[in-house]
Amino acid sequence: MEQPWVSVIMGSTSDWPTMQRTCEVLSELAIPYEKKVVSAHRTPDEMFRFAETAEERGVKVVIAGAGGAAHLPGMVASKTVLPVIGVPIQSATLNGMDSLLSIVQMPGGVPVATVSIGKAGAVNAGLLAAEMLGIQYAEVRDRLHQRRESIRQRVIENGELSER
Amino acid sequence: MEQPWVSVIMGSTSDWPTMQRTCEVLSELAIPYEKKVVSAHRTPDEMFRFAETAEERGVKVVIAGAGGAAHLPGMVASKTVLPVIGVPIQSATLNGMDSLLSIVQMPGGVPVATVSIGKAGAVNAGLLAAEMLGIQYAEVRDRLHQRRESIRQRVIENGELSER
Amino acid sequence: MEQPWVSVIMGSTSDWPTMQRTCEVLSELAIPYEKKVVSAHRTPDEMFRFAETAEERGVKVVIAGAGGAAHLPGMVASKTVLPVIGVPIQSATLNGMDSLLSIVQMPGGVPVATVSIGKAGAVNAGLLAAEMLGIQYAEVRDRLHQRRESIRQRVIENGELSER
Amino acid sequence: MEQPWVSVIMGSTSDWPTMQRTCEVLSELAIPYEKKVVSAHRTPDEMFRFAETAEERGVKVVIAGAGGAAHLPGMVASKTVLPVIGVPIQSATLNGMDSLLSIVQMPGGVPVATVSIGKAGAVNAGLLAAEMLGIQYAEVRDRLHQRRESIRQRVIENGELSER
Amino acid sequence: MEQPWVSVIMGSTSDWPTMQRTCEVLSELAIPYEKKVVSAHRTPDEMFRFAETAEERGVKVVIAGAGGAAHLPGMVASKTVLPVIGVPIQSATLNGMDSLLSIVQMPGGVPVATVSIGKAGAVNAGLLAAEMLGIQYAEVRDRLHQRRESIRQRVIENGELSER
Amino acid sequence: MEQPWVSVIMGSTSDWPTMQRTCEVLSELAIPYEKKVVSAHRTPDEMFRFAETAEERGVKVVIAGAGGAAHLPGMVASKTVLPVIGVPIQSATLNGMDSLLSIVQMPGGVPVATVSIGKAGAVNAGLLAAEMLGIQYAEVRDRLHQRRESIRQRVIENGELSER
Amino acid sequence: MEQPWVSVIMGSTSDWPTMQRTCEVLSELAIPYEKKVVSAHRTPDEMFRFAETAEERGVKVVIAGAGGAAHLPGMVASKTVLPVIGVPIQSATLNGMDSLLSIVQMPGGVPVATVSIGKAGAVNAGLLAAEMLGIQYAEVRDRLHQRRESIRQRVIENGELSER
Amino acid sequence: MEQPWVSVIMGSTSDWPTMQRTCEVLSELAIPYEKKVVSAHRTPDEMFRFAETAEERGVKVVIAGAGGAAHLPGMVASKTVLPVIGVPIQSATLNGMDSLLSIVQMPGGVPVATVSIGKAGAVNAGLLAAEMLGIQYAEVRDRLHQRRESIRQRVIENGELSER
Repeated sequence: MEQPWVSVIMGSTSDWPTMQRTCEVLSELAIPYEKKVVSAHRTPDEMFRFAETAEERGVKVVIAGAGGAAHLPGMVASKTVLPVIGVPIQSATLNGMDSLLSIVQMPGGVPVATVSIGKAGAVNAGLLAAEMLGIQYAEVRDRLHQRRESIRQRVIENGELSER
Repeated sequence: MEQPWVSVIMGSTSDWPTMQRTCEVLSELAIPYEKKVVSAHRTPDEMFRFAETAEERGVKVVIAGAGGAAHLPGMVASKTVLPVIGVPIQSATLNGMDSLLSIVQMPGGVPVATVSIGKAGAVNAGLLAAEMLGIQYAEVRDRLHQRRESIRQRVIENGELSER
Repeated sequence: MEQPWVSVIMGSTSDWPTMQRTCEVLSELAIPYEKKVVSAHRTPDEMFRFAETAEERGVKVVIAGAGGAAHLPGMVASKTVLPVIGVPIQSATLNGMDSLLSIVQMPGGVPVATVSIGKAGAVNAGLLAAEMLGIQYAEVRDRLHQRRESIRQRVIENGELSER
Repeated sequence: MEQPWVSVIMGSTSDWPTMQRTCEVLSELAIPYEKKVVSAHRTPDEMFRFAETAEERGVKVVIAGAGGAAHLPGMVASKTVLPVIGVPIQSATLNGMDSLLSIVQMPGGVPVATVSIGKAGAVNAGLLAAEMLGIQYAEVRDRLHQRRESIRQRVIENGELSER
Repeated sequence: MEQPWVSVIMGSTSDWPTMQRTCEVLSELAIPYEKKVVSAHRTPDEMFRFAETAEERGVKVVIAGAGGAAHLPGMVASKTVLPVIGVPIQSATLNGMDSLLSIVQMPGGVPVATVSIGKAGAVNAGLLAAEMLGIQYAEVRDRLHQRRESIRQRVIENGELSER
Repeated sequence: MEQPWVSVIMGSTSDWPTMQRTCEVLSELAIPYEKKVVSAHRTPDEMFRFAETAEERGVKVVIAGAGGAAHLPGMVASKTVLPVIGVPIQSATLNGMDSLLSIVQMPGGVPVATVSIGKAGAVNAGLLAAEMLGIQYAEVRDRLHQRRESIRQRVIENGELSER
Repeated sequence: MEQPWVSVIMGSTSDWPTMQRTCEVLSELAIPYEKKVVSAHRTPDEMFRFAETAEERGVKVVIAGAGGAAHLPGMVASKTVLPVIGVPIQSATLNGMDSLLSIVQMPGGVPVATVSIGKAGAVNAGLLAAEMLGIQYAEVRDRLHQRRESIRQRVIENGELSER
Repeated sequence: MEQPWVSVIMGSTSDWPTMQRTCEVLSELAIPYEKKVVSAHRTPDEMFRFAETAEERGVKVVIAGAGGAAHLPGMVASKTVLPVIGVPIQSATLNGMDSLLSIVQMPGGVPVATVSIGKAGAVNAGLLAAEMLGIQYAEVRDRLHQRRESIRQRVIENGELSER
């Protein structure tokens, strides 16, 4: 396997239907990635080891999805200076408002780049990682430009509305 | 110093005006405690070492205050089977609603005993620790009974209201 | 029946699908418990009698589930110095936000150890009771260590994600 | 003292600046009332005794102010079939949203007549009690009609706005 | 038809599944009532005529259910000194939080006795009206005592929980 | 006085510091207006008379500011087919969230054009009224274009930031 | 096609089931309109061109529906002095509360006339546009008066409630 | 002036006290930046020109602060594939909850990296930009490691708490 540039982690296998969208975007943009379950609460030591070694393993961006009292993105961020993107999973009881606040309201000193709740956010996490990589890699930026343009075309072409 | 039974930790020195209430209650009930700043985000390794060694050091209950994306109580709870009480500090922007949800909405498997936001919660964290210790120590339970009764008397005696 | 250490109460039989999770955890950890419906609003005298006699009956921890204007945990807590754990039931209209605030926002003096909304919270209530008992009973603490470790193993083993 | 028709209770002396407005309205409408501190959490037995004996003492309406996890109105309502009016006190952390939900979200079977948060609610509690008494007592209803009319006149007369 | 004591109104026929609970309670307690759709926004003049004439028609209590920007209870209350009970209908988009705030947050001077959101609130509206009538009519109060007692018995008898 | 095109009403004199911003914008744009206190709850008949006669008096747009359970804009809208703009006043307890929901969540059939909470909303109410009038009156539209352009210039000129 | 007076735009084809209600109302009132998808985020240049040319193309009112971080109404409003009506689409995760706040909380200077969340709001957007046009066109105002009256009749006729 | 790597923009000069924190962090880390006011609503064309030309001007990361209906970060993001970091300014009425939702809830396709509300978020925006640049520039990453370590030391040294 190619050296992954992006590491996509999530707190539970139940987060996979959401985080799969992230992986699809990364595949589409030909960005090598790895994915795995790393739980802040159930495997804290493995999480810390993951976060500590990510930089030396060559990972450039971490994407972490978590729900409820969502501590995974912020705790990984506390252990690395790689950019960490947090995806708030839509929670069963509070619709992801708890996930969002737990991820975004980080204290000054340890940032988490938070995206929208749920699947839209998972898509955007992949794109945001690509944008970060695009700072260095012109070809990634080019693919982002192309993706934008093709979506623009699709909206223009499909913008006709028919009565239902 | 006596072996502390309760360890009172907080994410920042700015949490001390709140968490001081916890310490006052523990002093009042003659429960030996220690207090220190342990930051989930700024000193994650120290936090883990604290949590890993608490049980063997003889600590029986941990009380952790934190605000905003408040990860300290939940992360300590992920590393120990001692009971962990979480105090949501009243945050500057969202009045502690972010602190509350970040602390209370833990996933199944790793509980945090959450109390009310701010100073009332800090008082109650001390009392709740005493109630837990009271399971084993009858003298602690006795002091709690006395405290309750004296408060009851005070309410009854001071319940007269005068026009202002 | 063995003398119950934990008393699991709830405001209504409709809370049982949630509170059943608490009982399952207690069974799993071999902690003797009793369970019953005690309604703060529909059987207030029975609730008070329950709370007043719990300590002398040998109960060590009370777990109370309630929804909406959830007064059961706080009112039981006002009548005993045993630790009381409150489980906010997910309510029909406000997703349990009303249950959560009614339970957690107790005034200084009468703590309720609040856990997360709904079934995750019910699981955690059982574990939290066990952690409290573990202060005194090493065998309970041992079982908690084992449970944690087996969950950790399960996450590590099942962490592989397959495309769906 | 005249037999009180309305009993104004509150959870703490700190609620008095709010509940004083209730008393002022009752005085203005010449409705005999009593007032006292009765705490659901700090004096639960006194609260129950209060609620049990209110009807036989000749009280016709109870007004209860409470804040945070505000259990006083609902618990009194569980012990009497007199109408109970709940005033949500504006709380320090959550602006009274916790008080409001704790009071208004009562389960079917035990109603609390909830008014607005804070001082406006305290005024309205007094008026609502008068409206209830006005069902039987025509002179109370007359005074309410006069109060309405005089307020209407005041709004019409003072409705001119000047630049500031 | 007997002279109705209680007038149950609602903003739309779509509120009937909720408000039917109010009518059931009133029937159960043998309290004569009328029911009709009166819309604050679609039939404002009819609403005002309703409110203006209610007292002279012999109505003693008004119960008004409304959802969303729920103006019906408050506007009727502005036109009568009869007690008005407001039932916040559970709205499609915001779960009734908009209905609740639109009904309960009345300014000082014009009270609305607000009950809980949705069907539990509709039941309680009927009971609250009965409690108000019970100030004058001992037989209504007696029926409320009996209803309470029979519910208490039912909770005690059915409080056994079986595994599912 | 010139025939007013816009009628600026508010529920209370205490709303004037907010609604004054509306009047300042209308003056600036040379749009004739009237202003007065019309209370939905304290002067309901005057409110209805106001709303019924506004169209025949030559008023073209109504702007209504109200707070809390803010019924004024919606009730005026129920009595006229003139466009009604609602300004949610920032309330004391819930920061205007109650005002906003009470105004904006109108049922299908009776629209209220809602603007932002507080003073920014009051400014925008004046501008929105001007935009509506600008459909017919080119000179009003011209003044709006000029105002926009001068604000644009101001932002560009003052956009330099100096350290403080 | 007749010159459209109202332009109905929306951020995505998925908003059409909501915005269709707007078009139905405009058809019913015989107001010529156009409809299309214009995305603030996916076709920003097309959006600006749309907004810039709307006035010169003879459009008199713009209605824009958008959900989530709903920027379409506000951005169109920043580029035209035509009145812009914003319809908050009910979002998947936060029920449209995010859409509402993103649309209504505009800064002073650039108003958006916001209506209620979802389908009721879409109906009201059409009516509000008609009310704005009715300032100039008496026949539109007449149709609005007729619509109101016919709805009033329908409520009065159908106001009888039958047990279900 | 050195070619700026980071462009710090904000909707209004009133956002500067918050966004100044971003600039301080960038200065501390020796990252060249520019700063200016660019208003989505008051200077939309300038905003688009800014966003269109940022990449070709050599800017690598954009940081945009905005409050209320905060459209600046998302609209800039719609016009560039550079990473855009959004800082929700604490708003006057809703404490920044409106700013947060307007920025973070972006639809799939156009990400904004959102940080916490207010000053803590502004600090983190600067650090997050540095982390993104650190993917390519090892010396930036080194400075981040040093900053983390020095903060860690400070927490450890100052963690002693004294009674106040």
